[in-house]
Amino acid sequence: MPRRPALPLWSSLALDRSAAASLQDQIVRYFRDAVLSGRLKGGARVPSSRVLAADHDVARITVVEAYDRLVAEGFLTSRPGSGLFVAATEGEPKVRLVAGTSRHQRKRMPKLRRNEQVFLVPERPLGLLPLSPGVPALDHFPWRDWTRITARLLRERPAHAMGYGDPRGDCGLRQAIAEYLGQARGIACTADQVIVVAGSQQGIDLTARVVAAPGAEAWVEDPGYPAARAALASAGLGIVPVPVGAEGLDAVKGAETAPRARLVLVSPSHQYPLGATMSLRRRLALLDWAERADAWILEDDYDGEYRYGGRPLAPLHTLDRGNRVLYLGTFSKVLAPGLRLGYLVVPEAAIAHFAQLKAMTDRHAPGLDQRIVARFLAEGRLAAHLRRMRVLYAGRRAALVQALRREADDFLAVDDDAGAGLNLVARLKLRADDVAASRHALERQVHAAALSPYYVGRPRERGFVLGFAGTPEDRIAPAVRILAAAIADQRPPRSRGRVQTG
Amino acid sequence: MPRRPALPLWSSLALDRSAAASLQDQIVRYFRDAVLSGRLKGGARVPSSRVLAADHDVARITVVEAYDRLVAEGFLTSRPGSGLFVAATEGEPKVRLVAGTSRHQRKRMPKLRRNEQVFLVPERPLGLLPLSPGVPALDHFPWRDWTRITARLLRERPAHAMGYGDPRGDCGLRQAIAEYLGQARGIACTADQVIVVAGSQQGIDLTARVVAAPGAEAWVEDPGYPAARAALASAGLGIVPVPVGAEGLDAVKGAETAPRARLVLVSPSHQYPLGATMSLRRRLALLDWAERADAWILEDDYDGEYRYGGRPLAPLHTLDRGNRVLYLGTFSKVLAPGLRLGYLVVPEAAIAHFAQLKAMTDRHAPGLDQRIVARFLAEGRLAAHLRRMRVLYAGRRAALVQALRREADDFLAVDDDAGAGLNLVARLKLRADDVAASRHALERQVHAAALSPYYVGRPRERGFVLGFAGTPEDRIAPAVRILAAAIADQRPPRSRGRVQTG
Repeated sequence: MPRRPALPLWSSLALDRSAAASLQDQIVRYFRDAVLSGRLKGGARVPSSRVLAADHDVARITVVEAYDRLVAEGFLTSRPGSGLFVAATEGEPKVRLVAGTSRHQRKRMPKLRRNEQVFLVPERPLGLLPLSPGVPALDHFPWRDWTRITARLLRERPAHAMGYGDPRGDCGLRQAIAEYLGQARGIACTADQVIVVAGSQQGIDLTARVVAAPGAEAWVEDPGYPAARAALASAGLGIVPVPVGAEGLDAVKGAETAPRARLVLVSPSHQYPLGATMSLRRRLALLDWAERADAWILEDDYDGEYRYGGRPLAPLHTLDRGNRVLYLGTFSKVLAPGLRLGYLVVPEAAIAHFAQLKAMTDRHAPGLDQRIVARFLAEGRLAAHLRRMRVLYAGRRAALVQALRREADDFLAVDDDAGAGLNLVARLKLRADDVAASRHALERQVHAAALSPYYVGRPRERGFVLGFAGTPEDRIAPAVRILAAAIADQRPPRSRGRVQTG
Repeated sequence: MPRRPALPLWSSLALDRSAAASLQDQIVRYFRDAVLSGRLKGGARVPSSRVLAADHDVARITVVEAYDRLVAEGFLTSRPGSGLFVAATEGEPKVRLVAGTSRHQRKRMPKLRRNEQVFLVPERPLGLLPLSPGVPALDHFPWRDWTRITARLLRERPAHAMGYGDPRGDCGLRQAIAEYLGQARGIACTADQVIVVAGSQQGIDLTARVVAAPGAEAWVEDPGYPAARAALASAGLGIVPVPVGAEGLDAVKGAETAPRARLVLVSPSHQYPLGATMSLRRRLALLDWAERADAWILEDDYDGEYRYGGRPLAPLHTLDRGNRVLYLGTFSKVLAPGLRLGYLVVPEAAIAHFAQLKAMTDRHAPGLDQRIVARFLAEGRLAAHLRRMRVLYAGRRAALVQALRREADDFLAVDDDAGAGLNLVARLKLRADDVAASRHALERQVHAAALSPYYVGRPRERGFVLGFAGTPEDRIAPAVRILAAAIADQRPPRSRGRVQTG
């Protein structure tokens, strides 16, 4: 491919190799400023990574990674086959992956299985944007400990960590998890009962495929977690939405609708997304039904470590006398989602079944990563990190609540409790399209997840699921202002000018 | 739990904190010597990690990891609920995971889905044993480059690598893979067509679930790869074995048996396990049938980088005009299985389907690992590593062939070709039970995989799939001797004493 002559604009990118900031950071900053200042307009094409790298004498991977970050942050957008462009600031950002291509090519490719698109994969990762739910403080990832532990492990040149391993996971990690669960969550289990999985998502996927055959029914919380429903659906299970109230999932309603369901997926510590803690009586009711129906319960305790007030209830797993609760935990919220590590605690007699399916889907979790986490746990670093994060998150939550009351009190209501986890729900006080407002906010680089898509059918409420844990305090109020403006723009025009009566 | 008094034997474990060897290594060596010398007998119980750690004032995780290695190497064996014991040297080692427990507990647990146990998960990882097939030289893993790249990445504190990412994988890695495939394998694809998966195993699992619905049929090579069949079966596909000859899979035979299969799984570069390279005419015949049947082909090119002579054929993917070949590659054989990283190249119109299912099963591959591999590729380190490994493996292969001719010529025949990949097949020249011989060799810490289980039905041949790449040269001949002895012991007694006739 012939080299394109450098466009005049790019000659203003001057990399300073003596600066403290890395070359990659300088490239990111350059494009970010150019877009924000308007020097680069939406839709403008940026040079290919190869050209930019050649023109500025840097490694191509440096440019590729810089572009990758700019795409993640929303400044650039990729059009497969065409290249990278400055993201447009008007119109709806696409939230589905582009699935089509030339009709000619589509005709020649064999048919694919019909896919129930119940889970929309965003075109770009949104987790770095302010208010993104379910993301821990990535700016406070424990780099120092992580780096030290990693370096020491690599110095040992652990060949045994690089080969094919046990499908249940590294023995040291399973042991550390069992001990952690015993101390931190009151769960009594052996290391053998622990299956290391690739995050909660895989825990749900494996469970659906181990405990039930296609066609069986599964209760899900409504509103609930769309990605979980998608995993159950892709395993061929029938999704039965069961309403969630202030006390959590109501097993009585579930039993009326689908008394012979095989599986229930619940988040009793901190219901996702509404935040309720499942009351003791609802827990006992659920266990009672499951016993009579001979059904399984998958307890998704994704962020049970974070409570900012009030007494935590022990996991549902601790109340189970019938070996029917599968306990699912993850390191995504207490460490980082990018690690892709979680764990399932299963009854002894089910170990072989889960290990077998885990082996058949992807063999086992990565060897080095498991050992790093095991040592991190064994050194007590997780407990220390959690203590710091609880303080940080409580502060960020308070800042979010305050910002909502100051900037969005006309539109949004927040529950007056101490809170838990990484997110809170802000309900709309008046009529507005939360999905449209969410899209609008996304164009302005704020990820305020609309509440309605969390419902299986017609939403009973509208609002937003707002993450505070992953958002630095100084970015919270500006983000809330953007959200408030986005809501205001979605309201029916007639009501905007309404004269206040009475 | 009260502390047990230290048994007299353990007082001979004297850890030297000033020694070069790590404490973990010293513990491993101590137990290994004690077992090999007979001081510790089969069945003897070893102290719990907690007790040993307390008695010798080391961190418990150090003991746990040492025990883990000893289990992996076969010196210790774990009995859930009872502890760790010295492995017995007589009797059959169990090759199924222990599935049962007290009948009482089994009665109370809800039913699990009926599992077709077509893939036996070994009780312990066997990959560190001599002759273990499919394992690269873990003793030559490129630690120096890996450590340097990892350290540099961690110094940057890459928060963007720690959040939820693109289900297709890190952009930089996909780009690096696309470039690598273009240069090394002649495959033309864009970065967008690359899906980063958790090893070949996940590539097969995802493909089975994306391209076909339960009940559809899939051709598999016979003999073929049991773990692959298991993944297809667990997705509900019907397994249709198609015989493999000297030219590879015969599409004519497949079409006679199952003309409307939806998917074919082939390893055309280096058939696993028999080693044949699929001839050009068989490739064209397969593509021709797939076009008429509108079927998909999954090309498993797991070790196509390794050839020790002869001209390699370009991947089947390069002959495909109908967008029906899915190309599967992996870093397991060129770097290490423990990384759990591989890639699928899919047609543009299928990207969204694969990305969707990947997102639903486990979201995406780990962020840090992907970036490390991307940089490793971008720096040209993989190409350099492969060059070194080709030389090393050619030497180890020659040593294995020589040892087989010297020590096992009565029993085993090896093809007289230059070879490829990480393994070779040694066929039995006379009647013997290869499965029993394999078990016998395993008791003596040699992993000579029997050939018959690779067949779907009744085996047409018996022998062994022997890995040379992962076995240091000085351990090859001793391992072959053990295998020869194991075979001799499996032969019918009458033939052992047979007098040689004219």
